[in-house]
Amino acid sequence: MGNIPAGINTPEILVDVEKLERNVARVAQRVASQGLKLRPHAKTHNMVEIAERQLAAGAAGLTVATVGEALSFALHGVPKIFIAYPLWINESGAERILELMKRAKLSLGTDSVAAVQQMAKMLGEKARKVKLMIEIDSGHHRSGVSPAQAVEIADAARDAGLRVHGVFTFPGHSYAPNSIDEAVNQEHKALAEAACLLREAGHQVKRISGGSSPTAELSDNSVLTEVRPGVYVFGDAQQFELGRTRWEDIALSVATTVVSRHEGSTQIPRRIVVDAGSKVLGADRPGWASGYGRVLECPQAVITALSEHHTTISWPEDLVLPSHGQQLRIIPNHVCIAVNLVDSVLAVYPDDTVERWDVNARGLNY
Amino acid sequence: MGNIPAGINTPEILVDVEKLERNVARVAQRVASQGLKLRPHAKTHNMVEIAERQLAAGAAGLTVATVGEALSFALHGVPKIFIAYPLWINESGAERILELMKRAKLSLGTDSVAAVQQMAKMLGEKARKVKLMIEIDSGHHRSGVSPAQAVEIADAARDAGLRVHGVFTFPGHSYAPNSIDEAVNQEHKALAEAACLLREAGHQVKRISGGSSPTAELSDNSVLTEVRPGVYVFGDAQQFELGRTRWEDIALSVATTVVSRHEGSTQIPRRIVVDAGSKVLGADRPGWASGYGRVLECPQAVITALSEHHTTISWPEDLVLPSHGQQLRIIPNHVCIAVNLVDSVLAVYPDDTVERWDVNARGLNY
Repeated sequence: MGNIPAGINTPEILVDVEKLERNVARVAQRVASQGLKLRPHAKTHNMVEIAERQLAAGAAGLTVATVGEALSFALHGVPKIFIAYPLWINESGAERILELMKRAKLSLGTDSVAAVQQMAKMLGEKARKVKLMIEIDSGHHRSGVSPAQAVEIADAARDAGLRVHGVFTFPGHSYAPNSIDEAVNQEHKALAEAACLLREAGHQVKRISGGSSPTAELSDNSVLTEVRPGVYVFGDAQQFELGRTRWEDIALSVATTVVSRHEGSTQIPRRIVVDAGSKVLGADRPGWASGYGRVLECPQAVITALSEHHTTISWPEDLVLPSHGQQLRIIPNHVCIAVNLVDSVLAVYPDDTVERWDVNARGLNY
Repeated sequence: MGNIPAGINTPEILVDVEKLERNVARVAQRVASQGLKLRPHAKTHNMVEIAERQLAAGAAGLTVATVGEALSFALHGVPKIFIAYPLWINESGAERILELMKRAKLSLGTDSVAAVQQMAKMLGEKARKVKLMIEIDSGHHRSGVSPAQAVEIADAARDAGLRVHGVFTFPGHSYAPNSIDEAVNQEHKALAEAACLLREAGHQVKRISGGSSPTAELSDNSVLTEVRPGVYVFGDAQQFELGRTRWEDIALSVATTVVSRHEGSTQIPRRIVVDAGSKVLGADRPGWASGYGRVLECPQAVITALSEHHTTISWPEDLVLPSHGQQLRIIPNHVCIAVNLVDSVLAVYPDDTVERWDVNARGLNY
């Protein structure tokens, strides 16, 4: 990664534009070569600057998690949006979705007969224009239904005059060590079974939509028609430690300053404290992670503790302890959460020029 | 807690104004009766609406963690601010601190000779007006120094023409089960020793400032002159599970909607999924916590998983599983993190009227 821009305040999120664009292009090419469409999950970045790069590289549309995110991107001209979430639509939600449908072609997730009937009731006539995507549980056991239940939902949708367009799943259980191959198999098996049962019951299945940055790489068009990776634009410490992102491809870091340093004693380990905390890095820490993120300048250092504005870093005995005021960059464990904590990031170009990019859809939880 | 306001979008953070004001008044009275000043940590709420209530109840000033938070409150008329953080001041930070000093009386934390010398260099003449507070490590092993090192820092401050005002510590190791009594003892011992050594070395120690919502209750003026609790205004699931907050005093919750429900099977537990996730609740989960927060309407339910927009709740076998579209309130594990994720909250009065309160200093990480 390039230099830390001179004179900045910290903590500040930096995006390496060259690496970002390389990631966008590489995954676009790979997914195309797999015979799949790419509908990237924009919740990772929530930035128009990055969405535009993804669409220019050939993305079929954007995936988001909330109506608010969808509205934000639609207002910035994104023409096709998939809200990959089992929405429960109330009156005020319906107004916002109808507003959204004036601006973008919309696909919506669902995983119940009740939500389908509610959608028909709340959206009225316009509900027919929605592409309905039924969520399948492929082993993550969060939302989603079994392939057999998908048929019940599709039947209810037909009865309510809605248009079933396809099925999707999120193999979130792939975010753990050694789980990836099984998660991919389960993902493909569940989606193939759902598509087969739906077709047997007389439903169209035009779109079969699979996960996530870890699993997308291992998919092809034997089952899926598209993939929805998100994290790949930046990478993060989690994906690096899972072996799914190369260190040199990581495009986002948090610039920090050393505010406290301690040479250590027999009781207390040698450490520095930097001015990033969970309010900019996020507090995600899966049990298998080495710590609360990684230090870009020192991969051997271990981030042992995180509070709101302090990151405690255990520093290797054989390396010089950084001095007060020295700046370091931290790679967050889970980049989606870090980006969601700031209103803007500093985009750094290879010639060291910088731009401020807004996180346009930040915090739009509904 | 009262009702969920009708027709709202979810997830939405609700503040019960009656309980909030009761918490503000109760702790103000208790701290006064302990012979201590109250300098509440505003990072918990970052809201002018709440700061004004704390000052009206007699708070001696506000504590914050960053220059940005301090500026935000100073611009809203808060007259005395303590940045309880070992700041490293660069040029642009110095400009902002000088701006801040036009508006508020300022105390600043430090824990090194290097940072004291940097402060003198960067603030110039004006550095003499800062009340310097030396941070002591009382066992949390984050920032802060030993009582003996505090004397070196105070000597360096005197040499640089700065004004040592006192000492402070954060006993963060009190945020764990059965650790509170020892943390309080360590806090008082470390601060008493530092104050004693500083006075012996000819330094003034006018302010001796102690922790945190858990420890403030167990302190008196035998050592301390003030306390800096933060979480007490709201309470949270963490403090409830530690036995430091009563269920009926919890003043903040996240309104959510059931979007997915599963009666369960022999393999998969009975569960619901609601539309709050780590992007509104925060992902903090200490090892001893029962889950990722608590359900206000059902204290027996267990929040087993959290992703960005999904909360998975294991529902007791003997209770009716909530229906699709039903609204429930989640108490976050760590309330400071939840509030920092939203730009505003919905303040609910006992007569069911609501106001929107801005989180004025949200995300001001520097």
